[in-house]
Amino acid sequence: MSAELQSAIVGATGYSGQELTRILFQHPRMKPPLLLARESDNGNAAEITSPVDGTAVPIHPFSWRLLHQRGVDLLFLATPHEVSRAWVPEAMERGLRVIDLSGAWRLHKHEYAAVYGFKDIGSPQSDALMDRAVYGLPELCRAKLPDAQLVANPGCYPTSAILALAPLVQSGLLDLDHGIVCDSKSGVSGAGKAPSAQTHFVETAENFRAYSAFTHRHAGEILEQLQLAPEQLAFSTHLLPIRRGILSSIYAQLRRAVSGQELEEMIRDFYARSPFVRIFTPPRLPEIQHSQHSNFCDIGWVLAPDGRRVMLVSCLDNLIKGAAGQAVQNMNLMYGWDEREGLVPVPATPSRFPRAAYVAAATQASYAAETVH
Amino acid sequence: MSAELQSAIVGATGYSGQELTRILFQHPRMKPPLLLARESDNGNAAEITSPVDGTAVPIHPFSWRLLHQRGVDLLFLATPHEVSRAWVPEAMERGLRVIDLSGAWRLHKHEYAAVYGFKDIGSPQSDALMDRAVYGLPELCRAKLPDAQLVANPGCYPTSAILALAPLVQSGLLDLDHGIVCDSKSGVSGAGKAPSAQTHFVETAENFRAYSAFTHRHAGEILEQLQLAPEQLAFSTHLLPIRRGILSSIYAQLRRAVSGQELEEMIRDFYARSPFVRIFTPPRLPEIQHSQHSNFCDIGWVLAPDGRRVMLVSCLDNLIKGAAGQAVQNMNLMYGWDEREGLVPVPATPSRFPRAAYVAAATQASYAAETVH
Amino acid sequence: MSAELQSAIVGATGYSGQELTRILFQHPRMKPPLLLARESDNGNAAEITSPVDGTAVPIHPFSWRLLHQRGVDLLFLATPHEVSRAWVPEAMERGLRVIDLSGAWRLHKHEYAAVYGFKDIGSPQSDALMDRAVYGLPELCRAKLPDAQLVANPGCYPTSAILALAPLVQSGLLDLDHGIVCDSKSGVSGAGKAPSAQTHFVETAENFRAYSAFTHRHAGEILEQLQLAPEQLAFSTHLLPIRRGILSSIYAQLRRAVSGQELEEMIRDFYARSPFVRIFTPPRLPEIQHSQHSNFCDIGWVLAPDGRRVMLVSCLDNLIKGAAGQAVQNMNLMYGWDEREGLVPVPATPSRFPRAAYVAAATQASYAAETVH
Amino acid sequence: MSAELQSAIVGATGYSGQELTRILFQHPRMKPPLLLARESDNGNAAEITSPVDGTAVPIHPFSWRLLHQRGVDLLFLATPHEVSRAWVPEAMERGLRVIDLSGAWRLHKHEYAAVYGFKDIGSPQSDALMDRAVYGLPELCRAKLPDAQLVANPGCYPTSAILALAPLVQSGLLDLDHGIVCDSKSGVSGAGKAPSAQTHFVETAENFRAYSAFTHRHAGEILEQLQLAPEQLAFSTHLLPIRRGILSSIYAQLRRAVSGQELEEMIRDFYARSPFVRIFTPPRLPEIQHSQHSNFCDIGWVLAPDGRRVMLVSCLDNLIKGAAGQAVQNMNLMYGWDEREGLVPVPATPSRFPRAAYVAAATQASYAAETVH
Repeated sequence: MSAELQSAIVGATGYSGQELTRILFQHPRMKPPLLLARESDNGNAAEITSPVDGTAVPIHPFSWRLLHQRGVDLLFLATPHEVSRAWVPEAMERGLRVIDLSGAWRLHKHEYAAVYGFKDIGSPQSDALMDRAVYGLPELCRAKLPDAQLVANPGCYPTSAILALAPLVQSGLLDLDHGIVCDSKSGVSGAGKAPSAQTHFVETAENFRAYSAFTHRHAGEILEQLQLAPEQLAFSTHLLPIRRGILSSIYAQLRRAVSGQELEEMIRDFYARSPFVRIFTPPRLPEIQHSQHSNFCDIGWVLAPDGRRVMLVSCLDNLIKGAAGQAVQNMNLMYGWDEREGLVPVPATPSRFPRAAYVAAATQASYAAETVH
Repeated sequence: MSAELQSAIVGATGYSGQELTRILFQHPRMKPPLLLARESDNGNAAEITSPVDGTAVPIHPFSWRLLHQRGVDLLFLATPHEVSRAWVPEAMERGLRVIDLSGAWRLHKHEYAAVYGFKDIGSPQSDALMDRAVYGLPELCRAKLPDAQLVANPGCYPTSAILALAPLVQSGLLDLDHGIVCDSKSGVSGAGKAPSAQTHFVETAENFRAYSAFTHRHAGEILEQLQLAPEQLAFSTHLLPIRRGILSSIYAQLRRAVSGQELEEMIRDFYARSPFVRIFTPPRLPEIQHSQHSNFCDIGWVLAPDGRRVMLVSCLDNLIKGAAGQAVQNMNLMYGWDEREGLVPVPATPSRFPRAAYVAAATQASYAAETVH
Repeated sequence: MSAELQSAIVGATGYSGQELTRILFQHPRMKPPLLLARESDNGNAAEITSPVDGTAVPIHPFSWRLLHQRGVDLLFLATPHEVSRAWVPEAMERGLRVIDLSGAWRLHKHEYAAVYGFKDIGSPQSDALMDRAVYGLPELCRAKLPDAQLVANPGCYPTSAILALAPLVQSGLLDLDHGIVCDSKSGVSGAGKAPSAQTHFVETAENFRAYSAFTHRHAGEILEQLQLAPEQLAFSTHLLPIRRGILSSIYAQLRRAVSGQELEEMIRDFYARSPFVRIFTPPRLPEIQHSQHSNFCDIGWVLAPDGRRVMLVSCLDNLIKGAAGQAVQNMNLMYGWDEREGLVPVPATPSRFPRAAYVAAATQASYAAETVH
Repeated sequence: MSAELQSAIVGATGYSGQELTRILFQHPRMKPPLLLARESDNGNAAEITSPVDGTAVPIHPFSWRLLHQRGVDLLFLATPHEVSRAWVPEAMERGLRVIDLSGAWRLHKHEYAAVYGFKDIGSPQSDALMDRAVYGLPELCRAKLPDAQLVANPGCYPTSAILALAPLVQSGLLDLDHGIVCDSKSGVSGAGKAPSAQTHFVETAENFRAYSAFTHRHAGEILEQLQLAPEQLAFSTHLLPIRRGILSSIYAQLRRAVSGQELEEMIRDFYARSPFVRIFTPPRLPEIQHSQHSNFCDIGWVLAPDGRRVMLVSCLDNLIKGAAGQAVQNMNLMYGWDEREGLVPVPATPSRFPRAAYVAAATQASYAAETVH
């Protein structure tokens, strides 16, 4: 297999950009990505170390001309929201395909998008672009990706919440009028690389705090993707004293009592063809360590004795499945490749849980039959 | 003020017992407590270091005779549940006052108590003792403590949940039929001192996990104290990679829309005479660091924009307000002393939040007027 | 005992200032300290929460006039080095006693002081002040404190290094020509409260790094106090992923082989009257947890099988014995009080080690005989 | 490239065995390894989850017959020392090649090996085997590996110490008579998976402690490999509150003053053909995060102003370069493959340091020219 695709990354030195760079440099289908920096980053490093061979890889000042000269086909934006919002229209016009890791193009409803303060909300141009943007959660939108020119890579919290809830919402089993509680917790890398009082070690270690209850700007993604009304979701976020990883505890009421077996089959069927969703059979529950440094989203649950209430537990690595890994998974599907390309190597910790805990139908059937690499 | 009360502690070397010993040795009303060990602890240290002057303090083998000889009036049991269950009847007969830090005497309903597997559940003797036991949450039972002979010191999780919910439940504001979600997180000292795979550093650091959803044995305390039915509460617990501290995120529906001011006044009024409950005015929320190493329970909340839903946040130190400090607070009230005696010195971290955040009516009026120490 | 001394603190909101404020508010000899901020801190909180009763304590803009009006006798400077350097001369002229927690007045030799970049180095005025300044390590300078007007509170690293080495250096046992290696490690609060890439949680947690080998500005203090030549000390520092605490591992060669007993007696004798130095008998060694939140400096050692080489281990809390606690200990001695006043309450963790591990002669004799509080 | 080698692993569930399994399953030259458990592990998991595709991989009871049936050529022992000591003779007789991750066959001198308490020390059979064993530090023994039948995989601490010191010792630059101080610090996974008071989260987090000064059983490896006398090395170890990683701070005296450039060239030349040693140009120093989850050993240093003393800083991941990764590197060389096979993917964090910091001659010349994968 020869490397074929030329991509470029803007923002390779942030936490997500760093992971994205690492994955793309080792991806068997990719030429080494072109690294670019916005002008305002001039003070930053003008090169990074190749994660493959230790040589220096230059970071070039951003220019559309350079993208053209280097034959870039796919542009990754690991940039602040307002930068992505400003640059995507021109990128689209120039015929580039774009995967945007920011929140700029994820939200369709103007009232949800308003939280980002974009000035062009409601303009015909941005509405048109928004219509063309695919919300890149591959497990739910796989079919739309081959033709997508603009993919809005989901937020880390929404990925964990939507993947856990989708099987139950789409089956109609959830009593939506009762409301859903999503109590999410994230490691500190989710707050970005800029130093602040919030990310100071002394204020964070041996500590834990809640923030943005009812008002987190990721809430809109969950509402839109699951077609919920605002009052049907109580979404709150917390800061864990760990470097990376998200765990969401989600509480919902069912329309009728179900058995554990019925619930498990419903969830397993839903993700039968999704190699990056691992289903945990009760009483086992996923932990943050299981998916750290991997592209897995792990899902488990506890059914209340009355069979009418469920607590879902969803874990992922906010920088991988919640950002860079998901972007690569989207790319694989945009280009018609196996969605696992370049994402397979996983860390040691998952070996701790027994087989029954997570092997989805997909992995037993087609998945295991193929040769990876 | 001269030291007057002779107490004894069984179990001074566990995490809660250690904190209890430290506080009692520095309590202005107390003679140095007599330290005792159960026979089965023979292998353990036969002495500890005095937290006051560094001298050795012997730990004696437990005997009722020794308690009598030394004139012990108050017995603290920082012992396993089954030991407390077995010993309390004789202690009561011998006329001792008892503060039991275990779960042995907290639960009245047989079906809740059953989770501990006590064999005497439902016997006339244990039912009679249970009737006499005071559930020692001073903020709710202050009046019963002066005459109490047996105080069941509450669990750490229930303390955080009940104190946050009590003002809203008792006011009738909560829509109980809608159900309450209590998503609690605790530091590792809550799991005790015995090494296990669960408490191994490598399995816990840079990790986070849920456990005991819908089935935690502390749930019964919350249900009983707030007079809820089991289906009205979804209670789950999680393990934080920190040494000590609990944060509970509690979600509830209100019967009618309220304003932030009404809610705040209701909660402030409820705790106007409770010096160890600190009320945080929105948008400030308590964090675990604020109450570590102190006897405070810190309460804050976020009201949803619709005014009908609330997320309460409650923090405390599981070894102090969740165990040893609360036991001393109970003792102070049993003996007619200021409930703050021996519990006032607080660590440096609370100085970070401004006055408006927590000064309850009590602290402004009577509290500040008195000289402490 | 009635409160008698009026002090003032400049810099009450930094990590050391915070601990200092907490201790002074609870010190039985002190009126509540007056809190002051430099003009440039205007943006900061104008009040803190009293650690005693939760009421608001205002922070006033600094003015000499206010110090005078309030009858301040003792001024604590928890300020940057250059501020202390600039303000001390006027404070001395106005007759105030000063305890300076910065590095401004610790170093006598111009070449060592030069590392701070003060412009007045070598001026007659600063040389004269420097001569009057007492290096406030009470275990070594106790006799000078009652008459001191200016006390230079030692650095946290030097306190740990000097206290461990002093008995061996002063006895002449150390082979100084062979050189001493002091490998020190500190928690992150030692880096201060200002957010930076160095103190970002993600860059520090699950990490460990060395910095400032051979060039740390604290080295001069160790050299001066132990009267060493620069080439006799290799001093390096490291950043631990913990909030607070220092451990120094110190390697030295002895002039002759000694027995463990001889070494222990030498060290115990040296600190026989020093209640805040705890001596650990081998094979026990101090750990950072033992002294966290206390004013103790814990010292242990391992003697090599050849009896000619020793590794000393010294632990302390960088914010207490390494800063605020030591400042209060200095104050107690400046005013003729028991040096333990206001510093006695200790946390629970020391109860883990048996008596033989640390009781110095002092604590067995005079210390235990007195009533504390 | 088709998978060709059949290996087996005994001890796949320990921390090192887990990482070894993960690497071998993804190694392009390997058939999936056969996993085996000793009888005494019967209670443990009988299967693990494949790190490649999530299917179950059985762990078989150990039997020589099964090794033969499956055509195993190479046996990895991730077993306790005494097990490796007992099993290796039979494995050798049966013609298997063996890489032993334990300490059983690392030490030649009887007095050093005695620390493990083996009963066969000094027997002709064990002496003969010991003579055939290659101490598998590839950077120093590369030439011996192709013909090795038994490779003793080095300890994690010795790997960090020897690699840092070897260039200076072999050049004759070090003043060995002056003695070397090696102050090493390790994450908790180095203490193994068995729960104990030492590895309890509450005793380790927010803590730091020294252990085994002058007597650590890894000291013998350093002495033998660098041909030092016991009195020439002061080696001590410390426990860091992190999951994985080692940093050694090493202090040594030089025979003559050198310039920074001379020192750097000496070290770079020494490792010019070693792709897994990264050299950091001063003033940059390696940190534990740089090499976590990788097979790199990172080396940096600080030269004292006098040019006569040096502090070396050496970092590695104790489970990878300190155990499983090094075992695979040894295997690659035993079978004549590129030593980087299966070890190349590296985590994101090294991208933080600029090129000049570490690119060794090897990586610039041959290394970068080859296509990896």
